[in-house]
Amino acid sequence: MGQTIAEKILSEKSGKEVYAGDLVVAKIDQIALQDGTAPLAIRRIRELGREVKAGKITHFFIDHASPPPRKELANDQKLIRSFAKEIGADMNDVGDGVIHQVMIEKHVCPGDLAVGADSHTCTYGALGAFATGMGSTDIAIAMVLGKNWFRVPETFRIQIDGSLPKGVFAKDLILHIIGELGVDGATYKALEFHGETIKAIDMDSRLTMANMVVECGAKVGLFETDDVTRRFLAEMGRENCFKKIKADEDANYEKELYFSAEIEPMIAKPHNVDNVVPVSDVEGVKVDQVYVGTCTNGRLSDIEIVAKMLKGRRVHRDVRLLVCPASRRVYLKALELGYLKTIVEAGGVVLPPGCGPCVGIHMGVLADGEVCLSTQNRNFKGRMGNPNAEIYLASPATAVATAIKGEIADPREFL
Amino acid sequence: MGQTIAEKILSEKSGKEVYAGDLVVAKIDQIALQDGTAPLAIRRIRELGREVKAGKITHFFIDHASPPPRKELANDQKLIRSFAKEIGADMNDVGDGVIHQVMIEKHVCPGDLAVGADSHTCTYGALGAFATGMGSTDIAIAMVLGKNWFRVPETFRIQIDGSLPKGVFAKDLILHIIGELGVDGATYKALEFHGETIKAIDMDSRLTMANMVVECGAKVGLFETDDVTRRFLAEMGRENCFKKIKADEDANYEKELYFSAEIEPMIAKPHNVDNVVPVSDVEGVKVDQVYVGTCTNGRLSDIEIVAKMLKGRRVHRDVRLLVCPASRRVYLKALELGYLKTIVEAGGVVLPPGCGPCVGIHMGVLADGEVCLSTQNRNFKGRMGNPNAEIYLASPATAVATAIKGEIADPREFL
Repeated sequence: MGQTIAEKILSEKSGKEVYAGDLVVAKIDQIALQDGTAPLAIRRIRELGREVKAGKITHFFIDHASPPPRKELANDQKLIRSFAKEIGADMNDVGDGVIHQVMIEKHVCPGDLAVGADSHTCTYGALGAFATGMGSTDIAIAMVLGKNWFRVPETFRIQIDGSLPKGVFAKDLILHIIGELGVDGATYKALEFHGETIKAIDMDSRLTMANMVVECGAKVGLFETDDVTRRFLAEMGRENCFKKIKADEDANYEKELYFSAEIEPMIAKPHNVDNVVPVSDVEGVKVDQVYVGTCTNGRLSDIEIVAKMLKGRRVHRDVRLLVCPASRRVYLKALELGYLKTIVEAGGVVLPPGCGPCVGIHMGVLADGEVCLSTQNRNFKGRMGNPNAEIYLASPATAVATAIKGEIADPREFL
Repeated sequence: MGQTIAEKILSEKSGKEVYAGDLVVAKIDQIALQDGTAPLAIRRIRELGREVKAGKITHFFIDHASPPPRKELANDQKLIRSFAKEIGADMNDVGDGVIHQVMIEKHVCPGDLAVGADSHTCTYGALGAFATGMGSTDIAIAMVLGKNWFRVPETFRIQIDGSLPKGVFAKDLILHIIGELGVDGATYKALEFHGETIKAIDMDSRLTMANMVVECGAKVGLFETDDVTRRFLAEMGRENCFKKIKADEDANYEKELYFSAEIEPMIAKPHNVDNVVPVSDVEGVKVDQVYVGTCTNGRLSDIEIVAKMLKGRRVHRDVRLLVCPASRRVYLKALELGYLKTIVEAGGVVLPPGCGPCVGIHMGVLADGEVCLSTQNRNFKGRMGNPNAEIYLASPATAVATAIKGEIADPREFL
């Protein structure tokens, strides 16, 4: 019987042919933890009194509060460093970047089974890896055993055809899809992306889409591997880990959904990710802060859009534009290509690699009544540290257009 | 009767010939406030119900918590922005830089009387300005009236001769002087710096020295103006505000002190700025964090030392090196000259212009038991956000040597 990508990977990792609905114990290839969740996992392991078998495939990241804004968080980070040394794990410290960006740059390979103590671990699906977020206790188990149990998810096949119009990006597409599906429209499903649009977009775009599948409840968002995947891995110096990942032609899908890429720039209004409308519906809303960065949109092509649109222009005087490259690698590339210079000259602020203000614990917490347009993946009430503020989600292009104009603006006006 | 620089400036600004001990009401040229203290001054003005006459000479800065780590601070910053608009004041927002650096780049002229709601306002004495910190209420009065009262300080004449040896910088010199005078050794005195060493050093060095005079209690640290001053102002596009400032030959000094520049690299140990010893006394102390930045040592020449020493080397794996250019101008220059690239490639982290972790409210708060070597001006218990941590103060060169070695190191080893 034909298999979806999720079924194929979980079959390989559990050593038997499995299908949607099956419960499996599967061998894990990569484990990732960040400073918000790692301390819980570490304390759980200490409580269990068990030895960690999977130290060599475990990666710790200090990205959520990096550098730390409070001594309690600094203490947590100290615990992480000492535990990482103890178990021989990979340690990524302040300034190294966002967990998911560094994982896809350095570690995750097509066909991998990767788990992370962070919801947006699903990002790695863009590389054809089965990747998903788990609670800290489940991650503790994964670290101790090098494996864990999974329910093989049903898959929604999502076919997207047509070309993205000028000013429309992968971020607009995934916002549109989430808007259609709803925040609980794909709970525990795998999404599998197909179609001519998907074949045509670059890896950064696929990563943005995979990153956000959890926002409609999905367990993972999977892409077949192709030359785009191969080129990306080659650029990261890891071409040898390329592997062809594809679904069988006769795989069994719970649903088949069709979308056209011929959409307008989209935006998610406060306070839900599926509260999606065309940008034109909210043009003119005054904003106080614009944030470009995060595991959703802090990659080189995102920073490039910011710099190109800002060239010869200025950030509006009533707006703070914060830009945060997602990793040390992205930071250095953006620096070398002159993007950071353009951004700072135009009045923007470049933050050190990490999650920046996305999680609301530092570096750009909003004031009461303020409005932020962000390229991040969540706009829940209080997400950026203040329940009395409003967050809109959009693409980097819409973000910059808005930063220039001081109010929500259609990027096509500036392209 | 001959006058000191302090007496001359306060005479001019009060419109009569005054001497140490006199009480004067003097016209103020520049008023500076930062996000920690401005809200207090603003609330005071609102309580007084008085109109602000000095809006045009008032400068607001968001540098202490920039970008803000908590909603309470974000709300304070929102208040500052709206008040600045209301009174027509100059507003320097997130990413523009540290209050004192921007003030000397853009606003302060030799002979000015400048006051700031920040202890290190004394920095501007390097430009031959009488500049001093005041409480928020006094600053509120200054904003309302454009003037305030002062007691003309007695002056200590400090003569420094000899050349700074290789690896020894202005920071070492001022630490040495504070170590000799003690933290209350010059309370409410003006320090006036003279001698061949002072003539020879550049403006960045003078600014570092003037910045720290408050650490021995001084009201202000004054330098005569000369070609170094003129060149600095020309570089900032403000040569026309150059003015010769010098003391009279027969001025009356309370004390005359003599120092030699022929010293070793110096360091202030926890938890007092006057706990100063040669670096060699504490070599080998393990450090967790190294911070280069602040109004004391976040200027271009400081970042240059960091980059030059790091070239071809790596930050020690157990150390976080945080580098924070003091202003947007310094950031852009350091970027253009390749310094930021070198620092990030070597494993360092570049923070956006501002105070960074110096004040202990964000971006590098220490964990319990951690040790930080910083180029800042204060190492009081808890200064960097954790009373269970230790702070050493030294020059950028000592800081980088330490970051490379992972323990306190003599910079001469790496020069």
